[in-house]
Amino acid sequence: MVKKISSIAQRSLALHKKLRGKIEVSAKTNVRTRDDLALVYTPGVGAVSMAIAKDPKLADQLTWKRNSVAIVSDGSAVLGLGNIGPLGALPVMEGKSVIFKQFSKIDAVPIVLATQDTEAIIATVKAISPTFGAIQLEDISAPRCFEIERRLADELDMPVMHDDQHGTAIVALAGLLNALKIVRKKSTAIRVVCSGAGAAGVAIAKLLHAVGVSTIILCDTKGAIFAGRSDLNPSKQELASFTNPKHERGSLEQVIAGADVFIGISKPGVLTPAMIKTMAKNPIIFALANPTPEIMPDEAIAAGAAVVATGRSDFPNQVNNALCYPGLFRGMLDTGIKKVDDAIKIRAAKAIAGFIKTPTPTRIIPTIFDRGLHQAVAKSVKR
Amino acid sequence: MVKKISSIAQRSLALHKKLRGKIEVSAKTNVRTRDDLALVYTPGVGAVSMAIAKDPKLADQLTWKRNSVAIVSDGSAVLGLGNIGPLGALPVMEGKSVIFKQFSKIDAVPIVLATQDTEAIIATVKAISPTFGAIQLEDISAPRCFEIERRLADELDMPVMHDDQHGTAIVALAGLLNALKIVRKKSTAIRVVCSGAGAAGVAIAKLLHAVGVSTIILCDTKGAIFAGRSDLNPSKQELASFTNPKHERGSLEQVIAGADVFIGISKPGVLTPAMIKTMAKNPIIFALANPTPEIMPDEAIAAGAAVVATGRSDFPNQVNNALCYPGLFRGMLDTGIKKVDDAIKIRAAKAIAGFIKTPTPTRIIPTIFDRGLHQAVAKSVKR
Repeated sequence: MVKKISSIAQRSLALHKKLRGKIEVSAKTNVRTRDDLALVYTPGVGAVSMAIAKDPKLADQLTWKRNSVAIVSDGSAVLGLGNIGPLGALPVMEGKSVIFKQFSKIDAVPIVLATQDTEAIIATVKAISPTFGAIQLEDISAPRCFEIERRLADELDMPVMHDDQHGTAIVALAGLLNALKIVRKKSTAIRVVCSGAGAAGVAIAKLLHAVGVSTIILCDTKGAIFAGRSDLNPSKQELASFTNPKHERGSLEQVIAGADVFIGISKPGVLTPAMIKTMAKNPIIFALANPTPEIMPDEAIAAGAAVVATGRSDFPNQVNNALCYPGLFRGMLDTGIKKVDDAIKIRAAKAIAGFIKTPTPTRIIPTIFDRGLHQAVAKSVKR
Repeated sequence: MVKKISSIAQRSLALHKKLRGKIEVSAKTNVRTRDDLALVYTPGVGAVSMAIAKDPKLADQLTWKRNSVAIVSDGSAVLGLGNIGPLGALPVMEGKSVIFKQFSKIDAVPIVLATQDTEAIIATVKAISPTFGAIQLEDISAPRCFEIERRLADELDMPVMHDDQHGTAIVALAGLLNALKIVRKKSTAIRVVCSGAGAAGVAIAKLLHAVGVSTIILCDTKGAIFAGRSDLNPSKQELASFTNPKHERGSLEQVIAGADVFIGISKPGVLTPAMIKTMAKNPIIFALANPTPEIMPDEAIAAGAAVVATGRSDFPNQVNNALCYPGLFRGMLDTGIKKVDDAIKIRAAKAIAGFIKTPTPTRIIPTIFDRGLHQAVAKSVKR
């Protein structure tokens, strides 16, 4: 496995060296004559500018705004690599831009930031926002990501979504809905235990709560989060208010007993075969830590897991944000809906889940290449 | 003329409606297979990110940074249209992006701002700067543009240039050098009178001073600017320190007497045939107000002008920033030079001027379409 990853790393470095940038800004029209220039630029463009100045909504029809997304990152939580800064984040954001274009024809511009200050990030994104139709926040560490997303969603009249939270949550929910069909359990009558209360963990808990999952318990490194635990930051206090209804205390090992579902967005090794054996019948295991899952799929299956998903493309059932965001932003831009609410997230998850007609343990989630997937997600935005 | 402009306006509006954005973000590589995805995005991109995190200079080789420019405007002084705001500015910035790509293969991203506050603009541009290789400031009104450009050039380790100032100044100087050849005068022994002390006027005065023009007098709406005039803002005080050496006072009409060169970056009608008749022999008239010049070329010639330039594409000798910026930024990005100093500006002006082997009164300035022009400007950056 190490060898394989190292070979991918070498080939990826070589590809990046060759391309010197995976994306480019292209002209959709040529300027070959003085007349072309007069239409694309001055004096002709003056009429376009004046028309928009009089009626700003015309920018949606006369500029790239309605098809463009800023992919904003401060480089503080890049992939599983940690706080590697804006330049280290740039190739990842370029990769997202490639995916946006290829799968939903969106013009996505990486914007990597020289600041990791919450207020400075909010001010910067607000300042550049007229250029774009929507904002995707990316690889910004918790808990700053919560405040940044909430404030921008409130203060800007355009879709703002932190992909590490909601992209992951939507795709995880999609997978869970199909996994539950396989084991014939209802989402409203399951016990879900999550390991990890960072950006993705919080968003998953909120979305599971929104679809009516009755018992959700999150564990951080200190064990179960419950209302009244003395060391909770504001984001975990909020979590405690709607999860863990019986105020259960204890370690992951203790609270996982009897659980129907485990969702890990934490780190390798936190889930053991022995813990799986204490879970309810036909347990569902989502071990999403990247690149090394909380437990390897073969071990989980040997311990009795009915369905296993990971974050990796080399195992079945990859929980991959890229199944969601190209279509979701396409739908938001096309409909002109400005807020990404729970109803939209749930519809997107159902669109992804519904793309698989007959779920099996090795196919609960489509792949990014499934024809029609991104269009289905885009369509789901408009109810 | 009104009819012609109106027809261009209609056709330009129609083109913009059809295109819905003159530029797009394109992928330089396809993602068709799981392997493609592993190289362009995770897991392969992780190695690229880590390599850059360890050595940030590698971003120049492994991302689009070294070929990308942000075109930043707050929409406060768009073309001749005034303060029409960021959305009104967007089609102009898209037009500049088209020109950047077509003439020098640069990836230029419009960034239009929701703020016109000097400090907020500086903070925003600094925050997004890691994404780009250079910053072009555009259509930001005086005097804020001076402070914004100076601070960003000082505080960022990358080229920063306000095009309305220096693009105009460089191309005007190029034209002037060729016009002086026609009338056989030396740049060091001429009297130049400028009408307009905004962004372009200030930059022209500075660049003429840098090439050794002995007498430069700028007029604003209150007449000649001289050291000690009681109503000067800081930018005009600085101008007064190196222009108008004899502290001449009076209106444009008074100080233009005996001048060899008139440069207008002001408004229609400020220059009359009678004034031209008071100038030195073979006067050179640059009437650059847009879209209506300070005097129409036929009137200027009838009054004795030896050479006339305007800002318009439908008359000979168009002083057009687009002759300069594609090549200049190409040269800055390719050489890795971080500061646009006077020496670079003068070399760029000479490269543009030198592109015309035998200047004539109707051809002192090349056009944007002249083959090899932009490469020559790019080459001039590297001395």
